[in-house]
Amino acid sequence: MDEALFGIWVDGEPCRTLAAADRGLMYGDGIFRTMVMRGGRIVAWPRHYRRLAEDCGRLAIVPPPLAILERDLAAVAAQGKDCVVKIVVTRGVGGRGYRPPAAPRPTRLVVAAPLPEYPAAYGEAGVRLHLCTLRLAAQPRLAGVKHLNRLENVLARMEWSDPDIPEGLLRDTEERVIEGTMSNLFMRRGRRLITPDLSRCGVAGVQRERILELAPRLGLRVEVGSFAVDELLAAEEVFVCNSVIGLWPVRSLEARQWPKAEVVPELRALLESSDV
Amino acid sequence: MDEALFGIWVDGEPCRTLAAADRGLMYGDGIFRTMVMRGGRIVAWPRHYRRLAEDCGRLAIVPPPLAILERDLAAVAAQGKDCVVKIVVTRGVGGRGYRPPAAPRPTRLVVAAPLPEYPAAYGEAGVRLHLCTLRLAAQPRLAGVKHLNRLENVLARMEWSDPDIPEGLLRDTEERVIEGTMSNLFMRRGRRLITPDLSRCGVAGVQRERILELAPRLGLRVEVGSFAVDELLAAEEVFVCNSVIGLWPVRSLEARQWPKAEVVPELRALLESSDV
Repeated sequence: MDEALFGIWVDGEPCRTLAAADRGLMYGDGIFRTMVMRGGRIVAWPRHYRRLAEDCGRLAIVPPPLAILERDLAAVAAQGKDCVVKIVVTRGVGGRGYRPPAAPRPTRLVVAAPLPEYPAAYGEAGVRLHLCTLRLAAQPRLAGVKHLNRLENVLARMEWSDPDIPEGLLRDTEERVIEGTMSNLFMRRGRRLITPDLSRCGVAGVQRERILELAPRLGLRVEVGSFAVDELLAAEEVFVCNSVIGLWPVRSLEARQWPKAEVVPELRALLESSDV
Repeated sequence: MDEALFGIWVDGEPCRTLAAADRGLMYGDGIFRTMVMRGGRIVAWPRHYRRLAEDCGRLAIVPPPLAILERDLAAVAAQGKDCVVKIVVTRGVGGRGYRPPAAPRPTRLVVAAPLPEYPAAYGEAGVRLHLCTLRLAAQPRLAGVKHLNRLENVLARMEWSDPDIPEGLLRDTEERVIEGTMSNLFMRRGRRLITPDLSRCGVAGVQRERILELAPRLGLRVEVGSFAVDELLAAEEVFVCNSVIGLWPVRSLEARQWPKAEVVPELRALLESSDV
């Protein structure tokens, strides 16, 4: 998000800086969500807000009230541009060392940036994945939460620089496939759609949740489970997803090629036609 | 560090704010060190700087040159007050998502705060430790590094609120004792001084390193190893350490009491008389 930003709001005010003593900086003590705004509305906003509030709850941070965030989003919408919106909520300033203050005042940050321009081929022919060597650590207390401790993702993303590879595949220390560095992942076997269990590590994105909910309308059986790379390579179709990229078929991983996305196009159409 | 701060400097300028888009905030993409300044000098500064540079290296961040940081510290010293100094180095602003920019410009933050006033009894009779339920996740790529992803420490510190318990004991998922939430730990058995191996998780502090180096002068044999809580409870003496607290004997953990610190007083005297 270093490109020409459309704006940053801190606690509702246009502002490009934050208190240096904020716990978000000092400890990564906060959460975030990344969303798309189209025509002045955040796609799947009620679900994003629910997940934001749940993630705050996992860290015992009081989430900003819905009405407050909607006022912030109205300021973004007033710019009249479709954009990526990132909301960050931190526990705010203060406390003695790691111990939070008795009555924290959370900080909220809203960042609006241009929609990224990915090659159209990523959504059609699909993407190549890098198989990351970094393994995600298992921390059930933080698993699933979109929190600000993202050094694993940064280190994983630094593993490759080939501009034709937009995403990397992350495993945990037990060799289970977990997610992409910035996306969730699904594999298809016949009419079964399987996505990794995220109870030990990984980030449970809103797009993954929408797919789990909507895919049965296409006659797909959805499952959350554990599987290794070998099983992934044996799948008939693989794709990654997040709220910004939508769905990207995976066209290759290591020596395996998947020539054609089969359910991705209809699943994408379903997701785009729904505001669930 | 919410108490009356003596000052914050960002990239050498007095400043209390930071770019909201800094990767330190967005991802915890950076490192820090906490030190004590007495009489205008940082205790064990050459070692702190070396460890700061090493930790930057682990994240592939170019560390600020020694001369630049020493100029920052001169500004702190000019205030003429003994204080705690925290240096934070982040990868700076920018990049596309998790991927760092091609030529990052690291941000450096120097925060000076009053020395904390702990009860004298902590250093003499010693402290009670809370046994944390949170288990540290194993991530060898980040183990030992004093990085900004500190949510585990925050969650662990939130487990207790008894004001008479200043520190908590952290284990990993394999039941190994690792460290305190803000300190390293040693146990003594006869003339053997043993501190946990930090190659899978934990933060390797400068005070721990100094003890490993200096304790042999007292006829103590130092070891880095793995042990469980049972073995800790069987030790003759236990203490925690960091650059701010110095050494605190542990006087109780669970039902175990340690009536008297034996080597802590002479070890403390040795550490205080040395600038190694």
